[in-house]
Amino acid sequence: MTAPDPRLSLNQATIKHADLATALRVTADAGIPAIGLWREPVAEAGLAEAARMLAASGLRFSTYCRGGFFTAPEGPDRRRALDDNRRAIDETATLAAAGAPGSRAVLVLVAGGIPDGSRDLAGARARVRDAVGELAPYAQAAGVTLAIEPLHPLYATDRAVVSTLTQALDLAGDFAPDVVGATVDTFHVFWDPALPEAIERAGREGRIASYQVCDWRTPLAADVLLSRHYPGEGVIDLAAVTAAVERTGYDGDVEVEIFHADVWATAPEQVARRVVETFGASVSPSLARAVDSRA
Amino acid sequence: MTAPDPRLSLNQATIKHADLATALRVTADAGIPAIGLWREPVAEAGLAEAARMLAASGLRFSTYCRGGFFTAPEGPDRRRALDDNRRAIDETATLAAAGAPGSRAVLVLVAGGIPDGSRDLAGARARVRDAVGELAPYAQAAGVTLAIEPLHPLYATDRAVVSTLTQALDLAGDFAPDVVGATVDTFHVFWDPALPEAIERAGREGRIASYQVCDWRTPLAADVLLSRHYPGEGVIDLAAVTAAVERTGYDGDVEVEIFHADVWATAPEQVARRVVETFGASVSPSLARAVDSRA
Repeated sequence: MTAPDPRLSLNQATIKHADLATALRVTADAGIPAIGLWREPVAEAGLAEAARMLAASGLRFSTYCRGGFFTAPEGPDRRRALDDNRRAIDETATLAAAGAPGSRAVLVLVAGGIPDGSRDLAGARARVRDAVGELAPYAQAAGVTLAIEPLHPLYATDRAVVSTLTQALDLAGDFAPDVVGATVDTFHVFWDPALPEAIERAGREGRIASYQVCDWRTPLAADVLLSRHYPGEGVIDLAAVTAAVERTGYDGDVEVEIFHADVWATAPEQVARRVVETFGASVSPSLARAVDSRA
Repeated sequence: MTAPDPRLSLNQATIKHADLATALRVTADAGIPAIGLWREPVAEAGLAEAARMLAASGLRFSTYCRGGFFTAPEGPDRRRALDDNRRAIDETATLAAAGAPGSRAVLVLVAGGIPDGSRDLAGARARVRDAVGELAPYAQAAGVTLAIEPLHPLYATDRAVVSTLTQALDLAGDFAPDVVGATVDTFHVFWDPALPEAIERAGREGRIASYQVCDWRTPLAADVLLSRHYPGEGVIDLAAVTAAVERTGYDGDVEVEIFHADVWATAPEQVARRVVETFGASVSPSLARAVDSRA
């Protein structure tokens, strides 16, 4: 049996059908030291109770998923989205304070797609920039880092108009790195011919707010959102990407985040064990640093 | 009824189940002045006969699809692939000579994916560079332009390790622009935040060897290869991309290339009419130039 890597974090989406209590218990029981939480199960428990449960679990809090979805043009929908992001920032701060030492206040941002009926990808991208600009002072005041996540270009029109790490860094560039950074998720960025330079730049600019791993394999699932695999069970060169992230000095948690119908249909205890094993085999050997004790 | 645009070319894959004779007849009958041919139906007719049929059709020949698939490591598979590309180059020259005035000797190259069992995307990309280097003198001697086609990152591992126009231009950069250029296909490149700069660069470097249009719409088809739509029936800003290509001075044919089960199940005459109409509505207004008479 593999001992869990001290930098491993289980992103809660990997055990999507577990409620918060179950997710915390399964993660801790598997010896995984950290967890990335999602808003829906936190809301279900209630924020104060969720923070209490997280504190009791002894787990580090690695990220909060997720904010964003703010590509709508100015109007009530956009205002609602930005208000909701402010609430997500507040929740992130609360949960980070409740997590074990080394917890980070990082809110992952998924930009959102092109609004219905529009073909204006460039305009949607400009509105992402505006939204980040509007939220940044609020995040800064709350001590929260906004982690813009580029999604695979496969999702550029219906889910995230931010498609490359370079683009995320260009968006983040107007802000302090502890306020606006980027999420590097292997599934979304591995294909990018400019990835080595983009990761190096992200490190140099202090922008890597989260590193997430899972694998890519073809054929894709019929629902392309649910096509993420355990690390090592696809064709991503996780050793190369992980080594590039490590070279930047990143010493935070490394989340495993898998969306897959088969994984979701498996008992969460079994998923957690499998995450420990596959991470240990395919990611741990490339991790140079011990876990950061940022407490 | 829309009059066919003088720069429109029907890529034969759009009417995949038509044999060469039918494809030529349907294209000419629809008043479409040019056609892009595929190797399989040409082989079925025999090259000499195909050239004779093309000449008799009075159609311009816009591109030949396709060469490439040369990511295998050194060995018999790689040698076979390169030999096959040399044959494709010869066929391209023969067909271009048979087409109507304005025909171009352009061979579209799809790189191929990561070899089975490998995770070495960077290595596969390096072997594409080597393959192009090996083929370039042969293409030059034959008067054929190799048009490297970046494919959507969706296909980076199983179909084409060349994923962006920038990457294609970097690959082409070691060669004369009339020997190695790029294919710009809206479906494959529209998502790229760096696209405006890449198209401008492609034009400046004289590398746009072919411009192809079709549309992107979600959800994708279960077989993601067959998810291409008629121009205007998706969310690509075809006006913006086409205008960017036009600004470079590109004055060649514009191919419509659609892979879609429903389109393939439709009578080719009807598909050709629909191509004429949708192109006229969504692409023609952005075409500044009359067709080049390169004869």
